[in-house]
Amino acid sequence: MNLRTPGPTPLPPHVREALARDMVDHRGPEFAASFSACVAALRRLFRTEHDVLILTGSGSGGLESAVVNLFSPGERVLSVSVGSFGRRFAQVAEAFGVDVARLDVPAGEAAEPSAVAAALAAAATITSVLVTHNETSTGVTNDLPEIARVVRAAERLLVVDSVSAIGAIPLEMDAWGCDVVITGAQKSWMIPPGLTMIGVGPRGWEAHQAARLPRFYWDWTRARKSAEKGQTPWTPAVGLVFALEAALAMIESESLERVHARHRRVGARARAGVADLGLRLVARDQARASDTVTAFWLPDGLSASDARRRLRDEHGVVLAGGQDELAGKILRIGHLGYVDVPDVDEALAALRAVLGATDSIPAPVFARSSRA
Amino acid sequence: MNLRTPGPTPLPPHVREALARDMVDHRGPEFAASFSACVAALRRLFRTEHDVLILTGSGSGGLESAVVNLFSPGERVLSVSVGSFGRRFAQVAEAFGVDVARLDVPAGEAAEPSAVAAALAAAATITSVLVTHNETSTGVTNDLPEIARVVRAAERLLVVDSVSAIGAIPLEMDAWGCDVVITGAQKSWMIPPGLTMIGVGPRGWEAHQAARLPRFYWDWTRARKSAEKGQTPWTPAVGLVFALEAALAMIESESLERVHARHRRVGARARAGVADLGLRLVARDQARASDTVTAFWLPDGLSASDARRRLRDEHGVVLAGGQDELAGKILRIGHLGYVDVPDVDEALAALRAVLGATDSIPAPVFARSSRA
Repeated sequence: MNLRTPGPTPLPPHVREALARDMVDHRGPEFAASFSACVAALRRLFRTEHDVLILTGSGSGGLESAVVNLFSPGERVLSVSVGSFGRRFAQVAEAFGVDVARLDVPAGEAAEPSAVAAALAAAATITSVLVTHNETSTGVTNDLPEIARVVRAAERLLVVDSVSAIGAIPLEMDAWGCDVVITGAQKSWMIPPGLTMIGVGPRGWEAHQAARLPRFYWDWTRARKSAEKGQTPWTPAVGLVFALEAALAMIESESLERVHARHRRVGARARAGVADLGLRLVARDQARASDTVTAFWLPDGLSASDARRRLRDEHGVVLAGGQDELAGKILRIGHLGYVDVPDVDEALAALRAVLGATDSIPAPVFARSSRA
Repeated sequence: MNLRTPGPTPLPPHVREALARDMVDHRGPEFAASFSACVAALRRLFRTEHDVLILTGSGSGGLESAVVNLFSPGERVLSVSVGSFGRRFAQVAEAFGVDVARLDVPAGEAAEPSAVAAALAAAATITSVLVTHNETSTGVTNDLPEIARVVRAAERLLVVDSVSAIGAIPLEMDAWGCDVVITGAQKSWMIPPGLTMIGVGPRGWEAHQAARLPRFYWDWTRARKSAEKGQTPWTPAVGLVFALEAALAMIESESLERVHARHRRVGARARAGVADLGLRLVARDQARASDTVTAFWLPDGLSASDARRRLRDEHGVVLAGGQDELAGKILRIGHLGYVDVPDVDEALAALRAVLGATDSIPAPVFARSSRA
């Protein structure tokens, strides 16, 4: 199968070997070495001199951990949402009694940094901004450097859901002034889901000290303290840490710059291929279209479920459908992590066949991720 | 290495193969089939006709999920604690503002069902009882059927931390009247850590409906609803679900009764071996000594860290040390999951050598888990 969903992504052979390793004592030296190597590599890749915590849970658990570690009941925060995952972050905050002001934009649009600045200028009580770096539901990448600039200028805390961006799309945590950055294992990091990694800078720790929401499992103070010994407060997903160590070594061996360039290449290829098929991107501005996931509107008369079934059964290509109000209306091609141009080309050829384009050709058979 | 900690435990080859499988769409048919097979097998192995939820997180996450799904702020519950993990469950509840009454017993002792009955008779405001089935820190198994009987008679909710028992030590969820039962992947279930499995019966769901603690990631209503489609609300640890399916098939192929008998056998062997070395069990009553972990006091003059290092470096045997007030004073031999008598014998032989017993013999080299 050519798994072209925006996470989980295919696994490199090195990662699959690491996953098959036998267990070790999670309080012993092998685990401590692997865990500490992961933390060190993640700090380099997050472009931060501060902390990166590794917690056992899904990316949504990472969002919850940010909420309960940073805020107090009734605290006012601004949610900058451009799709389903932006709304989810706001819902998590509201579930814990945080007072969420919303800056929502229609599906396909990116957030305007000037609108963020205006919202902050209008409400002095807002302490923090929640923003999605790359919106997986619409294939839109926000202008994070510029949003970070206006949030910094307004002296508020910046909490970034970069679950489907960092590691594939540039993010300079310290240089841009992102206070908290959250990601998930199954995205750019090329390993199975089950870990969430969270960068926390000095202003993040300051907010954490003041935060009064109840927490136990997700507590960052405990995580930081245990990490000093190469451990975690609770039994961690040991096998996923081994896998992460292998994947991070691959990323650093390719170099982060080349990984970014590869994602720009596959992103451009996906967008060109979709345009070539006469399909329209959900992203309204090409300059904000994502390099990790391409979402496009289905043509009239083609059912999303039929298209996905035919792509899968006849061509071995798995695409994602739409979420929430976009369900049944769009399809999404994931192209992040262990991916290169042939994987995208195969998906496009399959799509061409299913769309019944007149110049339809059989899907060429490429080796999966043949760059490896 | 002969990993003889009470979790993580060694992995069977079938499980390691499953872990090395490539990723699939977590909203697609392969995942749904595997997830639903796991749920069906777990219901049989929990001995329940009700729900078993599978959440991505550590066992401690499972404890937190029980607290936030079952209780309201200020609600009064009874914690029956016989060691570190009993205290942890109480700490989780207190972290969320639950009012915890404590019935603590000294390390090595089991809880007296009559004391539980008396505590409940004395406090009509207590709605629920938190109890540890098997205390991993001391190697003591509580008399759960009898505790369940008195909690049922008092008409309170019974919430069981069976993280290190169920699947190795008998637990009849429905027949005994356990309302909520929590376990973790890396114990009897022979897979790496990262999943927590939670049985919830009708009275558990009733308490859940009334519970007002804030929750999002751990929400059981969302988990139950998604499970109807063979899915999870958030991206699950896909690889661990594949591994769990393989492990559950092994357990059912061996039969739960034979798995229980094997754990009785290895437990008896560990206790006999420890006694033979002149060592004293932490468990004060042999009848309550655990069949999944054996804790024993170190003889005077032997340092725990030295003993563990020599066991590991000279004999390839990894034992666990003590926790909290038992740190430095005890060692623990884990014998749950993928284990049989030769694994325990090898650990005992290594221990004999390290203790410098006069009839010391070199540790025999057995194939790991040679029963497979």
